[in-house]
Amino acid sequence: MSDAKFELYYWPGIPGRGEFVRLVLEEAGADWVDVGLQSGGKAVSDMIGKGPVPAYAPPVLKVGDLVFSQAANICSYLGERFGLVPSDEASRLHARQFQLTVADVVAEAHDTHHPIAVMKYYDEQKDAAKQRAEDFRTQRIPKFLGYFERVLKANTQGGGKYLLGSGFTYPELALYQLVDGLLYAFPNAMRRVSPEVPGVMALHQRIKERPRIAAYKQSPRAQPFNPQGIFRHYPELDDPNATK
Amino acid sequence: MSDAKFELYYWPGIPGRGEFVRLVLEEAGADWVDVGLQSGGKAVSDMIGKGPVPAYAPPVLKVGDLVFSQAANICSYLGERFGLVPSDEASRLHARQFQLTVADVVAEAHDTHHPIAVMKYYDEQKDAAKQRAEDFRTQRIPKFLGYFERVLKANTQGGGKYLLGSGFTYPELALYQLVDGLLYAFPNAMRRVSPEVPGVMALHQRIKERPRIAAYKQSPRAQPFNPQGIFRHYPELDDPNATK
Repeated sequence: MSDAKFELYYWPGIPGRGEFVRLVLEEAGADWVDVGLQSGGKAVSDMIGKGPVPAYAPPVLKVGDLVFSQAANICSYLGERFGLVPSDEASRLHARQFQLTVADVVAEAHDTHHPIAVMKYYDEQKDAAKQRAEDFRTQRIPKFLGYFERVLKANTQGGGKYLLGSGFTYPELALYQLVDGLLYAFPNAMRRVSPEVPGVMALHQRIKERPRIAAYKQSPRAQPFNPQGIFRHYPELDDPNATK
Repeated sequence: MSDAKFELYYWPGIPGRGEFVRLVLEEAGADWVDVGLQSGGKAVSDMIGKGPVPAYAPPVLKVGDLVFSQAANICSYLGERFGLVPSDEASRLHARQFQLTVADVVAEAHDTHHPIAVMKYYDEQKDAAKQRAEDFRTQRIPKFLGYFERVLKANTQGGGKYLLGSGFTYPELALYQLVDGLLYAFPNAMRRVSPEVPGVMALHQRIKERPRIAAYKQSPRAQPFNPQGIFRHYPELDDPNATK
């Protein structure tokens, strides 16, 4: 399919769950190719379910003969392989814990616009979406981001700046992408919540400015948020527009 | 807290996500204690958020000084530590892939009775629950169990019996518990779907008969499904009662 060492298979057109993998590959400076973006969605659907160990859904990563799936699983594999987390057991387990907790929020963010049926249109479930989005904005976002704020504070070794230990680790890329998605989808709600989680917002800004992440996000390889993805900006699902 | 080597912290009263961890500990014959069941919910809430790396939610596992969370993360740690998966990289990554895919279904099963707000009562979201449960029963259960059926078939080395390689591995405990929960919550739907996934149903039966699992499920350590848990049997959320 290509000469690149790492092949990512994910639907073209949205950042989606593939973006969590892309960020780790970019931060690592890996030799990788986005097969979906380069060859189209059929290459992705052909890969799902192929081989001795089928995937349920993309993202799928192919590294030589090794083919496996689940975004958090792939991110942890790459993060550990590229030394984006200390190699001791506790650090690895805690990094995976954070990655999986971000994945839980991502699933809930998706369900704000699809609370009833993933295969039906948003328009067919708008009323339930309004209710679920209100709960997500007022209860879940503060609770989840408040959790990561506590994690930053509890990590005294990191001086309130890092999730783990005394420096950057790969789950910070996931937390950055989550916050980025929330800022896109729920700008009003995030204007309200941000002051409560200054450490999380500062981390988001720091990751955004990392040279490889900044270069990637400005490249044609990065696909912008849009109303087909996990994070969608429907004004009726956000906080009412208060002051501005 | 105890002399046991492994301390599980999870809410008492329901199998919940803690059950996935309990099954691995039991199958491994580990020296473990269910702190929530033994000491009550306060011991669990005290442990969440404690220490240098807070948990978002239980289950939390404590092994000596190591404390970490996220059910799939804990199951993989234990499964690998106790040799319930081959030690090569591909097997470990595929086992984690399966464990995470089961976790995705578990989250969706929960949302059938709480499609709008996790902190509100079922009675406050019954209409949306009916719609979401119908989609889950008719679309999602067949799709997810059909996926695992394909995995069993694709694994020619396992003769259609095993998820991975030529023998039992720990994610089979998760798939067993998932099917068990679905049989409890959606008996009518499962009567309809089961014939389509004979391999999955045979695996469920095989795991149920494993001596340590059978002994555990009959012990006072095992807490039965009930209407407080993730898997809930509300007849109005199941398929209509067709023949019997």
